[in-house]
Amino acid sequence: MDNVLTLTALLHGPDSPGIVARTAGWIFENGGNILHADQHCDAEAGMFIQRIEWLPAADAVAEAQRFRVFANSLGMEVKIGLSTERPKVAVLVSKQGHAFHDLMLRWTAGELPCEIAFVASNHTTWETAARQSYQVPFYHIPVTPETKDEAELRLEALLREHDVQLAVMARYMQVLSKAFLQRCPIPVINIHHSFLPAFAGARPYLQAYARGVKLIGATAHYATPVLDDGPIIHQAVAPVNHRHSVNDLVRRGQDLEKQVLAQAVCWHLQNRVLAYGKKTVVFD
Amino acid sequence: MDNVLTLTALLHGPDSPGIVARTAGWIFENGGNILHADQHCDAEAGMFIQRIEWLPAADAVAEAQRFRVFANSLGMEVKIGLSTERPKVAVLVSKQGHAFHDLMLRWTAGELPCEIAFVASNHTTWETAARQSYQVPFYHIPVTPETKDEAELRLEALLREHDVQLAVMARYMQVLSKAFLQRCPIPVINIHHSFLPAFAGARPYLQAYARGVKLIGATAHYATPVLDDGPIIHQAVAPVNHRHSVNDLVRRGQDLEKQVLAQAVCWHLQNRVLAYGKKTVVFD
Amino acid sequence: MDNVLTLTALLHGPDSPGIVARTAGWIFENGGNILHADQHCDAEAGMFIQRIEWLPAADAVAEAQRFRVFANSLGMEVKIGLSTERPKVAVLVSKQGHAFHDLMLRWTAGELPCEIAFVASNHTTWETAARQSYQVPFYHIPVTPETKDEAELRLEALLREHDVQLAVMARYMQVLSKAFLQRCPIPVINIHHSFLPAFAGARPYLQAYARGVKLIGATAHYATPVLDDGPIIHQAVAPVNHRHSVNDLVRRGQDLEKQVLAQAVCWHLQNRVLAYGKKTVVFD
Amino acid sequence: MDNVLTLTALLHGPDSPGIVARTAGWIFENGGNILHADQHCDAEAGMFIQRIEWLPAADAVAEAQRFRVFANSLGMEVKIGLSTERPKVAVLVSKQGHAFHDLMLRWTAGELPCEIAFVASNHTTWETAARQSYQVPFYHIPVTPETKDEAELRLEALLREHDVQLAVMARYMQVLSKAFLQRCPIPVINIHHSFLPAFAGARPYLQAYARGVKLIGATAHYATPVLDDGPIIHQAVAPVNHRHSVNDLVRRGQDLEKQVLAQAVCWHLQNRVLAYGKKTVVFD
Repeated sequence: MDNVLTLTALLHGPDSPGIVARTAGWIFENGGNILHADQHCDAEAGMFIQRIEWLPAADAVAEAQRFRVFANSLGMEVKIGLSTERPKVAVLVSKQGHAFHDLMLRWTAGELPCEIAFVASNHTTWETAARQSYQVPFYHIPVTPETKDEAELRLEALLREHDVQLAVMARYMQVLSKAFLQRCPIPVINIHHSFLPAFAGARPYLQAYARGVKLIGATAHYATPVLDDGPIIHQAVAPVNHRHSVNDLVRRGQDLEKQVLAQAVCWHLQNRVLAYGKKTVVFD
Repeated sequence: MDNVLTLTALLHGPDSPGIVARTAGWIFENGGNILHADQHCDAEAGMFIQRIEWLPAADAVAEAQRFRVFANSLGMEVKIGLSTERPKVAVLVSKQGHAFHDLMLRWTAGELPCEIAFVASNHTTWETAARQSYQVPFYHIPVTPETKDEAELRLEALLREHDVQLAVMARYMQVLSKAFLQRCPIPVINIHHSFLPAFAGARPYLQAYARGVKLIGATAHYATPVLDDGPIIHQAVAPVNHRHSVNDLVRRGQDLEKQVLAQAVCWHLQNRVLAYGKKTVVFD
Repeated sequence: MDNVLTLTALLHGPDSPGIVARTAGWIFENGGNILHADQHCDAEAGMFIQRIEWLPAADAVAEAQRFRVFANSLGMEVKIGLSTERPKVAVLVSKQGHAFHDLMLRWTAGELPCEIAFVASNHTTWETAARQSYQVPFYHIPVTPETKDEAELRLEALLREHDVQLAVMARYMQVLSKAFLQRCPIPVINIHHSFLPAFAGARPYLQAYARGVKLIGATAHYATPVLDDGPIIHQAVAPVNHRHSVNDLVRRGQDLEKQVLAQAVCWHLQNRVLAYGKKTVVFD
Repeated sequence: MDNVLTLTALLHGPDSPGIVARTAGWIFENGGNILHADQHCDAEAGMFIQRIEWLPAADAVAEAQRFRVFANSLGMEVKIGLSTERPKVAVLVSKQGHAFHDLMLRWTAGELPCEIAFVASNHTTWETAARQSYQVPFYHIPVTPETKDEAELRLEALLREHDVQLAVMARYMQVLSKAFLQRCPIPVINIHHSFLPAFAGARPYLQAYARGVKLIGATAHYATPVLDDGPIIHQAVAPVNHRHSVNDLVRRGQDLEKQVLAQAVCWHLQNRVLAYGKKTVVFD
């Protein structure tokens, strides 16, 4: 079903009987054809969550708007997208480039349904790569303890100016402040280089080495005001042993970071992820 | 949702618009509440497949029967089960007991929603274990080239007599004949000790050792008249290296065999697997 | 090389040049033939660790004794075993039997090079299985807050009486006291049902569920006076998602627990594991 | 031990008692200090294989030469390298760039201990990337059925001219002829996009899709005159299900291909791989 125009809706709201029938009925009556439908009911939270992808009947944009009205009438919030839309994404990076290059190459290869609005960094390491190899704007936003507030204001302005809908921290080695995250209008996906909740905070590979674990991990999560505590989207691990130095853990971990971050970003862009409380539902 | 009475339907038939809406609508109108619904459309085969699990309104048995009539009216074949039903399963084993014990212990622990109708074997190795440890009937059906037809007739009679709905070959080291499989009224799940289609046939671990592969595998599939060629339900692999002898491959592989077979049997019993052609859909 | 009489030495001590040459030279001069040799140098700890397995020249028992004297003369501590020796192991279990049955079945199948001296439990759930299915002594040692000291003294007496060399906590749901572990003359392997250091302590699956992780784990480690903090021998993980209830995590996790514990016990029995500080070297 | 000058020898030859002691003794007597030593004896083939890494005493180049003479005197063939050496590697690529970019980025990041002598391709797709992003020579060698012999002669000339010691087929979609491989003076590593020996030959993802497997794989192997039959260095798999189209398998498989190929190339460059017959020993 590559290259076919579809609508994808991600709904959530209080659980009530018959929602599956109502949404499927609406689409059928409006001439649409459901390709995929998946739902989840969190009984503890009393929440119903559904993802539906369908072939619309005629005018997809109008149908999306009418479906939104319908879903709201059921008491559901809804995020709805056309398969032809390409939301704008900002990539934040520092000196380590593995996750940055991986994302940009996947984007170049057509794996990520988005536009890269810009790359921003507190260093200039990847300025040439961003501009020349990947042909995207690059902003250098230096950060010092004194200028951190100012730098975050500049980043926020850029996100608004470019109409960015998702920010990705591709090993951006600055902790975004609570104030920034609270007023940030869009989701921010971060990759933490450990199997959270183990080894939150600084230098997780060194922590893992000191503890003598036999697996290292990487965790992609939505950034929240509490450091490394946001809803987890994806995690993966790789085996390590006594022969591995801290540097070996770093190298092995970078492969995990790349894959876990790219997968999380891709799922997010495909409207597959809903975060609520400390959890996510991922309709993969 | 453990211990709640639910209905689970597995439908398949020619794809046509609105099936999702119709089945969901029927359940809603009949007072049911959908807990899970998953579907798949194989565009090449023009086939629609759906699994729905719901809380029925009142009389589950009657509702199951009415749903069957409804599904047939849509041109769909349907297999429908109550969560309280425990289909009868026969376990076939030879001398190697790892997969047999694993299944029986999981069954004892309540992991497999079925009754073990009997254990049958061409050897008596596990007769005491079957009867005393697991408290199930055991039938010794010796097989020689001369008595193979007769043995299969006896097995078939036992399956019918006990009203068995699934046979599991837990390392049963006899090839069931085409004739048996063609007239066998129930599905047969086999575990092959390789990553099919690599190393079909005899002595797969020896073949894997000779080829120098770096991963060994196990494959659970439905037995069909063509050896090791049936629809695959589940597969898993484990790493091996030059230090491993053929015996080491056997030992490592046994862990795979146990897990892969148990998972396949469990999915089958939960009405999660539909086989068509050489493929399966597994709604996990 | 199954069924061949070999010697296996596990040495450790301060690193100094030439140890590899000296040990290999000693074995060669004494007519032995090295089958495997592996070593590790922890530069930070200044420690050299080696595992050598060889075919001895003539009298294996005498050669083992002479090698010990030789290794000590190099300033190395050494643990040395004959492949024909079967150290005595005690298995501790509570009500949940999956890890217990898994160990016993592997032992019955010849996978674990040991004798099971006895099974001890604070419940009687597995008394019949231990005695009749597996034909090993069973001791019921009830534990209440009031009788805990007494119970541990009884366990300690049994370990000494049976000349046990390894105790395995196969989901033994009692925390062994600091006092017991400090005076316990033998290593104790525990299986913790999480990916340590995440979710140490009680109810790790519930903790994992609440945190919304996407992988659950199991960790085999040597028990030390600090709970869930001992040197890690082996770890494994399995994916989970929003569809899994806490009970599903428990069921999935049990498969991990079985494999991780059995692998750790097997490596220990094969003289492959050396613990020092908070780490282990595993020569697998 | 990063950035320390070491010698690494990979020896193989007929097994005879005392080789471990002799090589370790030689290094010790010559003032070296062994960092790692691993060996394997293939009893069926009567072959002994060893990898030793050590800190040399003084003049590493001279010591390497003297060790070679010593190893030959034991009847062993030996490949010996200094950790500061960077063998020259040629990368062959066609239109699909994922494996090419992955290798080049790892090389740029310092993960691969080699020089990239040149990139050659039957297309010009990656000419700019090779020259500008990665700053390496690029040769366009078009291949048609009529010009294949000529193209291979040109490739061979380039390999000799640049003194290349390893060629890597990073999804180079041409089958190298038997004649080329027989006269090729250096090893060639290929990545096959299936779990060999399953799905050798053309379009493995389509074959895997048609067979309905539940895991797809990638295999790095040394190219030999028989297609997809060379000694396997590394393999990995990833799960797939009925939701995945052939294109999905391709995308998922590309991640496997990248990692498996990069790992195989890295091991080869670190003198960790010895191929003999249809097998490899990998001292990882």
